[in-house]
Amino acid sequence: MNYMLKDENAIYYECGYSCDNALYLRAGSEAFFITDSRYTIEAQERVRDAQVIIDGDLYGTAVKLLEKTKVKKVIFDPKEWSVAGYEKLSLHSKIDFKPVVDYSHKKRIIKRDDELKILAKAARLGAKAFKNLAKAFREEGVGKDEFGLTYMARAALSNFGKYELSFAPIVALGANAAKPHAMPTDDALHKNDLLLVDAGLKYKRYCSDRTRTVRFGKNFTFSTKQAFKNKEMQKAYDTVLKAHDNAIKKARSGMKAREVDALARDIITKAGFGEYFVHSTGHGVGLDIHEMPYVSNKSDTIIEDGMVYTIEPGIYIPGKFGIRIEDMVAMVGGKAIVL
Amino acid sequence: MNYMLKDENAIYYECGYSCDNALYLRAGSEAFFITDSRYTIEAQERVRDAQVIIDGDLYGTAVKLLEKTKVKKVIFDPKEWSVAGYEKLSLHSKIDFKPVVDYSHKKRIIKRDDELKILAKAARLGAKAFKNLAKAFREEGVGKDEFGLTYMARAALSNFGKYELSFAPIVALGANAAKPHAMPTDDALHKNDLLLVDAGLKYKRYCSDRTRTVRFGKNFTFSTKQAFKNKEMQKAYDTVLKAHDNAIKKARSGMKAREVDALARDIITKAGFGEYFVHSTGHGVGLDIHEMPYVSNKSDTIIEDGMVYTIEPGIYIPGKFGIRIEDMVAMVGGKAIVL
Repeated sequence: MNYMLKDENAIYYECGYSCDNALYLRAGSEAFFITDSRYTIEAQERVRDAQVIIDGDLYGTAVKLLEKTKVKKVIFDPKEWSVAGYEKLSLHSKIDFKPVVDYSHKKRIIKRDDELKILAKAARLGAKAFKNLAKAFREEGVGKDEFGLTYMARAALSNFGKYELSFAPIVALGANAAKPHAMPTDDALHKNDLLLVDAGLKYKRYCSDRTRTVRFGKNFTFSTKQAFKNKEMQKAYDTVLKAHDNAIKKARSGMKAREVDALARDIITKAGFGEYFVHSTGHGVGLDIHEMPYVSNKSDTIIEDGMVYTIEPGIYIPGKFGIRIEDMVAMVGGKAIVL
Repeated sequence: MNYMLKDENAIYYECGYSCDNALYLRAGSEAFFITDSRYTIEAQERVRDAQVIIDGDLYGTAVKLLEKTKVKKVIFDPKEWSVAGYEKLSLHSKIDFKPVVDYSHKKRIIKRDDELKILAKAARLGAKAFKNLAKAFREEGVGKDEFGLTYMARAALSNFGKYELSFAPIVALGANAAKPHAMPTDDALHKNDLLLVDAGLKYKRYCSDRTRTVRFGKNFTFSTKQAFKNKEMQKAYDTVLKAHDNAIKKARSGMKAREVDALARDIITKAGFGEYFVHSTGHGVGLDIHEMPYVSNKSDTIIEDGMVYTIEPGIYIPGKFGIRIEDMVAMVGGKAIVL
């Protein structure tokens, strides 16, 4: 199988190194990692099982290599390649380029045992970071605005610089939490506020992802047992938690992804909040924070052992509040175990 | 002029808001911002001069709008669009799609006065953050590894969460600085070490970018006056500083970008370090950390008033050390002023 990759994580998966300007080419028994001179030293130190070629003209170099290796057919992912990058290769060579959507993500959908271990460790470190963050919020959170709280989340999740983050943490209060991808505002944290935190870290380049919604107070924790003063809020919270727990308990290898989605969605719909669950139940997690399988109400992907994905139902009532509870699960022995 | 945009900053430039899943369409006198339901509230609050359409099928919606508006020709940037995204539009409509490389970057190459003010403020905040970082390094830097030092750079540049960062800060010691885009290692900071910091922050979404290379000690600052103990290092440092100063002093509107590059490069080459200056002299800065003009030895772009770019010559000797000094300049009244 011949293929070419441009995405940083797709390339890392093949050869154990990547950077923001590289092209990876697999042609028959040969593999090439092409990058520019800013990355010479690191590429030569770290790339495994591929020849490192330093040339600022990544595409020109790839065309020459393709001609030399005499391969006839090369797979590429049309979501990964820009029109310009693809044309640089396709207009200058006689190769038959075969588009395969999500080519690398499909290769990566079933995690190897070593990847499962790394992801489990990432999730454990993420959970521990939430504990540290709760302590920090209890001690210093009161009166801080969402910018300051987000910074505290960065500090806790990165363990003060030890780990990269999976994505920019989301810390949202009250009605701001009704935006599933909220941006910080200058609203400040006070007693009894609804507080939503969605954050993750990277361990050995693999992502963790976790969300908790809590009632803030001097003794709060990020456990899933939460008591809100507002009745509608409590009803919504209990519904989300029930949906979350039900999906984790009943997900099975062999199901379609949309059946897993339904395990959560049906509970929310039956409780009357269906229109407020505006996104999918979950997404795969690995080197990318969003990868396959996508646990949506449209996905026919068959869930299999070795897949890792999030279960994260939510209810978002504009102008009022938003609630989401998220954990990562791995399919092992036919069932979902929480990482 | 009709055009469609996919890039987050390209879209922000048009309508004052963007997010990680949006499509912007300008068709005659109408403009449309299409995104999914996660962003409904923020999009409706913030998008200016465009109709907000919430539909998870961004491409399908765009095709329908194009049919409705009856435009015949639409510009797109082949570097910005994926093969898959472009095909979703081009295969399903009768529009003549016209590729224009760097379409949005070209629109943005000359900064408006309000943008120049924002960029100047970003640069000032960046410089101030370097002062705060120097203080932090003097007080707590000794013995910290590059991960810890990078975290301190994040803290100082973000002003503890107040600002987003332009990019992941680079903090590199000694031989690690010979990698222009170094990744952190567990090497620790000690007296007399060569310390390179390349970092920036975002103010109102516009980036700052600054690099200093210093000899670390209890009284060090990030000023460009530095005295190293090693003679070769000092010679390289003096050469980089001379190249940096010469390019800033002599850059003129009307020059080609490669002439500005030569103002720095020739000094480094004449001093015998030419082979160790492995990148361009600079790059434009704006909403993106890297945009036009590219100040490389191949660029025929004419430098004009209103352009903002970095001057950042460097010398990188593998296994020994790396030196880079970087400032942002704006072309005003025909000359480069340091922001």
